[in-house]
Amino acid sequence: MSELSTPDPLPPIITLLTDFGLGGSYVASMKGVVLSIQPAAVLVDITHCVGPQNVREAAWILAEATPRFPPGSIHVAVVDPGVGTDRAIAYAEIDGRHYIAPDNGLLSLLARRCPPTRLIRLENRSYWLPEVSHTFHGRDIMAPAAAHLSRGVDPGELGPPLERLVSLDWPRPHLEPRRIVGEIVWIDSFGNLITNIDRPTLLEHRLLPEMPGAVRPTIRCRDTTVDRIVSAYAQAPPGTLVALVGSSGLLELAVVRGSAASRLGAHVGDPVVLQW
Amino acid sequence: MSELSTPDPLPPIITLLTDFGLGGSYVASMKGVVLSIQPAAVLVDITHCVGPQNVREAAWILAEATPRFPPGSIHVAVVDPGVGTDRAIAYAEIDGRHYIAPDNGLLSLLARRCPPTRLIRLENRSYWLPEVSHTFHGRDIMAPAAAHLSRGVDPGELGPPLERLVSLDWPRPHLEPRRIVGEIVWIDSFGNLITNIDRPTLLEHRLLPEMPGAVRPTIRCRDTTVDRIVSAYAQAPPGTLVALVGSSGLLELAVVRGSAASRLGAHVGDPVVLQW
Amino acid sequence: MSELSTPDPLPPIITLLTDFGLGGSYVASMKGVVLSIQPAAVLVDITHCVGPQNVREAAWILAEATPRFPPGSIHVAVVDPGVGTDRAIAYAEIDGRHYIAPDNGLLSLLARRCPPTRLIRLENRSYWLPEVSHTFHGRDIMAPAAAHLSRGVDPGELGPPLERLVSLDWPRPHLEPRRIVGEIVWIDSFGNLITNIDRPTLLEHRLLPEMPGAVRPTIRCRDTTVDRIVSAYAQAPPGTLVALVGSSGLLELAVVRGSAASRLGAHVGDPVVLQW
Repeated sequence: MSELSTPDPLPPIITLLTDFGLGGSYVASMKGVVLSIQPAAVLVDITHCVGPQNVREAAWILAEATPRFPPGSIHVAVVDPGVGTDRAIAYAEIDGRHYIAPDNGLLSLLARRCPPTRLIRLENRSYWLPEVSHTFHGRDIMAPAAAHLSRGVDPGELGPPLERLVSLDWPRPHLEPRRIVGEIVWIDSFGNLITNIDRPTLLEHRLLPEMPGAVRPTIRCRDTTVDRIVSAYAQAPPGTLVALVGSSGLLELAVVRGSAASRLGAHVGDPVVLQW
Repeated sequence: MSELSTPDPLPPIITLLTDFGLGGSYVASMKGVVLSIQPAAVLVDITHCVGPQNVREAAWILAEATPRFPPGSIHVAVVDPGVGTDRAIAYAEIDGRHYIAPDNGLLSLLARRCPPTRLIRLENRSYWLPEVSHTFHGRDIMAPAAAHLSRGVDPGELGPPLERLVSLDWPRPHLEPRRIVGEIVWIDSFGNLITNIDRPTLLEHRLLPEMPGAVRPTIRCRDTTVDRIVSAYAQAPPGTLVALVGSSGLLELAVVRGSAASRLGAHVGDPVVLQW
Repeated sequence: MSELSTPDPLPPIITLLTDFGLGGSYVASMKGVVLSIQPAAVLVDITHCVGPQNVREAAWILAEATPRFPPGSIHVAVVDPGVGTDRAIAYAEIDGRHYIAPDNGLLSLLARRCPPTRLIRLENRSYWLPEVSHTFHGRDIMAPAAAHLSRGVDPGELGPPLERLVSLDWPRPHLEPRRIVGEIVWIDSFGNLITNIDRPTLLEHRLLPEMPGAVRPTIRCRDTTVDRIVSAYAQAPPGTLVALVGSSGLLELAVVRGSAASRLGAHVGDPVVLQW
């Protein structure tokens, strides 16, 4: 980051992402299990507000947030509709970070961006709680495995190799002559609509207004035409529907100081079309 | 947990459970007070989404989550409709863990499961903030007392002994010949309905399908008959109403990938009847 | 706090306050950035549930919560509708604590209560992420600057001095003969209505019932007269509309075990009139 950032010894960072919500005891139970095995754990919540059983949403958030953490961090993600069946629980090393999650596609967006360097199937009961329920493997298997990893247990001890991860389909935009058809992949808490059209694609077709010789596309979503392409929300008056490259490097549609999701009635999966 | 889990020195873990919600400054104020006295505190949120003044809900969550934490942890619970009156504030040692809470029944489910080994009434103002409001003893009394405890202050310093804790009534199921009448004691964020009928009771009456010679009971709740008893959610197709022993060792009713609470319109306190 | 509280070495406490909500990846991304630069950071959430772009709400919470933290703490607040424009990002030292926030009024309530002793405009890119988006300066500028500060970087390294902070208007009550006209400045999660009328003002006019020779004012808000002035919620029966001095030292209106906000349909900014 700067020459001041000489490496410190990394504390045992363990992050948690679940669909458990913020009430109840489930998240805290996982934290208690981790701290019982690894009292020095630095626990960080990614989010617990993933929609129930929404593996795709969890995969997106995991892929956006965890690469910001220092290499060596351990990331546990529990959105696990198949708990208690024979679905595997996976350990994956991806880009120098450690992931533990049910093998249901949760790690597949991360893995598409950067192929895993190691895959293990969690089977060694020595690193689980002595009593394992049929309904809460986050607490009984994944939390203790993460805590043991952070104490220096080699991932290979957790079980046999896993050949490949279950993969979800992550849609890419269709590129046609003078036309790109993408789709909404995420809606953030402000109601901004994040698409799967990335900056390199926009650069390649000279679609960003700050470029010399830029082409000005028409952008449409849900029968609505976007007013302007800007580079920051506040470059247009409140209430304007704008398009811009957001903080993930992806084209997003936004209403200045408002919600594009409400204005357009938009949902994840809706197409966004650029034409020029 | 495993032979690798040699004891580490325990950091000063202090957990917080309140009905303050997630907006506003109240939770953060308590954390600031703790860190001002005990900068090394490892603060963990149990939850702050307990319903306003819902002591019973808080007692349930506290009893479910905190036994997962390492012995020596300090647990502060603030659901305190009687703040500013003469209700006591209690310190309790239960199962090797330390609890601080208003004495309004909040600790009574824990205490029923494992009798307290020490009870103190917080009265020694040396361990409170210098200025104590009439409306926020979580910040002014309980947070500083917990921080002082974690610095090694003996619980006996906090005040005189307290004779007994205020107790809430925790309903037990009625066992009749070929019939058990329990009730819903908790609804989790997935809409699963957790009852007060525990696994030993089900084992005793051979009501679990995996047992040799198992009896198959009819299970009813709110005029609805449960379709199947399973051992994991995903053993039945999405949408099926199932019963299973959940992660707390209690019989629960669940809709696979759905919400039993919505399907049945069920609430805490509703009866659940097993008949065979 | 007491003679036991000898100073410990302060860990690098960094608090976060945003309007990002609890879903999504934005908060976690900031935490990842902080931990990548300062692995020893003790991260504390103030709240992430500020209304979108509600700078005034954020300023209130920041001013209420952060003075409870130990001096030396670093507080990062990101409610930033002007992100990507030429609004400054400010570092302020206030009352021995460090603040980083967009200069949009967010720090102005704190600064009114205690004038800043140092003001810097964040301009030195050495302490930012190498790549800075136009839409997320919390992650790309403020989080890394805070992490560098906590590693001992002098605030003066972050950029040139800033002359003054942008200030919001913080309404004071109107004092008239035998009449005080205040207003609601905050509604907490219980629905309590916190006004801008403080205890010293009430004492000066002998308006608190526990004072000798106390005057009993009529208190009105939204065409409703408050039943009683009490000193703790539970001094009146459930359902009673009471007034009391709350935990911020301000007059508040509350319904015992209920919500005054719902009962009165009250909002921030509504007048509260005391007459006697």
